[in-house]
Parts: sequence; structure tokens; C-alpha cells
Amino acid sequence: MSSKIFPTAQDAENAFYEALERCDLDGMMAVWAEDEDIFCIHPTGPRLTGQDEVRSSWAKIFAGGAGARVQISDQVAVSGMMIAVHSVHENFTVEGDPRPRAPVIATNVYLRTPAGWRMIVHHASPAPAQLEAAPRGAPPKILH
Amino acid sequence: MSSKIFPTAQDAENAFYEALERCDLDGMMAVWAEDEDIFCIHPTGPRLTGQDEVRSSWAKIFAGGAGARVQISDQVAVSGMMIAVHSVHENFTVEGDPRPRAPVIATNVYLRTPAGWRMIVHHASPAPAQLEAAPRGAPPKILH
Repeated sequence: MSSKIFPTAQDAENAFYEALERCDLDGMMAVWAEDEDIFCIHPTGPRLTGQDEVRSSWAKIFAGGAGARVQISDQVAVSGMMIAVHSVHENFTVEGDPRPRAPVIATNVYLRTPAGWRMIVHHASPAPAQLEAAPRGAPPKILH
Repeated sequence: MSSKIFPTAQDAENAFYEALERCDLDGMMAVWAEDEDIFCIHPTGPRLTGQDEVRSSWAKIFAGGAGARVQISDQVAVSGMMIAVHSVHENFTVEGDPRPRAPVIATNVYLRTPAGWRMIVHHASPAPAQLEAAPRGAPPKILH
């Protein structure tokens, strides 16, 4: 499972949101760095640190049910040689529930490891309900 | 004002929290990169982008009053050549109000620019009230 190689931070991000939609715990954990310094803040949640806390939080979320789709918008990306930082809006829709929801704002940080790019930080917080639509993200800024 | 040089990301972080305590708008903006790709999420707020939105948000916060102290704890830091990512707990105390408050969780991202290290991302969200005290942060992890 963790032999998956992501050649870019964007590949890791795509896999992260695919795993989230599919409630695929192994797929989710294959995105995270095998490192105790990873951390994850779910919306309105505390900071979780390390493989065990992060894995069990996703296990709990995924046990809660499937059927949610997430569409990513408004990406801003800053990339160095070793670290990439993405900010996105996560737009969730739940089957059978057409109500519009405020997006979740996520800061995602990726690290270039010997096993490809992996996530080390996911910080998500709910945007206020009155959030106006922002313009689509600009192309990623490359520093090197 | 923006001629201030921060030799390390930690120097920029120290200046950020000093400016926040002092409600010093120029000091605050001297920490941020002079870049339109900066962004700032205040607790429960939307994502603000660019110098103008970020500056006016701090102006509004600082106009709201002084007297708050902030103590930083539980720092985790990951540093590359060009980008450093810090996660901290911000512990606010307000003069004359001894009630314990839940910390704010902040992800701070710094960029090495020609003018020294500058902040490019501040993502803050309130931790749940029942957050238990976490151990003090480990020493920063250096990647290069």
C-alpha cells in the first residue's frame, strides 16, 4: 500500500481527495508521509499528530458513511524543492441533499521524500457561510 | 518599515506574534511577503488573499483593542531551503479575564525571499474547548 509513488505534490493531492471521496483508509494513509511529524486538523478539531492519531481519525470519519463528493476549487500553490504548500476550497456535496454548503478551507503541505511527494500537514477549517465565490486559482508559483 | 530583514523563519514568527500582541499594523505587515500570493485565514474566517485584504483584516482586529497576550506552545516545525512550515498553539489571555480559553491552532508558512524570511500563509482555527494539554513541541526538523 505505501509503495505508491507520487511524482508531484499535485499527484499526492489528487490521491488524497480521491481517497477521501472513496472512504479508502489505506489509500488515504498512502498519501501521508511515514513520519511522526505529520499533523492533521479536521474542521473544528484539535491538532492530531503522528501516524496513529491521523489514521484513527480518518477511520472514524470513513466509518461515518460514504456518498459525499468533494470538488476542489480556488487552489493556490507555492512550491519549493522539498516542500509544497497548497491552499484549496473543498466543496462537499452529499447525495440526496441539494442544500448549498459553505466550503472547507484547507492548507495542505507536501514533502518530497525518498518515496515521492507525501502529505505532512492537512489543516482544514469551515469557511463562514456567507463566503462569496472567489476567482479560480492562479497557476502554481514555482520557486526554483 | 518593510526593510526589516528576518534571518530565519523563527525570527519572522517572533516578530509576527510581537506585532499581534502590540496591535502594531506596520510591524505585522513587515512580516508578510510583499506578494499577492499571501493568504490569511483568521479563526472562523474566510481565506483572505493579497496585501490589501490581509492588511485591512489586521487593521480591523487591531482597532478592536489591545490588552491580549499570546503565548505560543507546542511548536512543530519543518524547514526546507526556501519554505518553512510551523504549527503552533496560540494561547491568548486577556487582562482582567482569568477564564481559561481553548488555544487557537495556527499553521504558519514562511518563504525565504531576497529580503529575508517572510510569512506567506497564516491559517488559524479555534481548537475545541476540551483540548488537553499537549507535550511541548519537539526541536525543529531540518531537511537540508
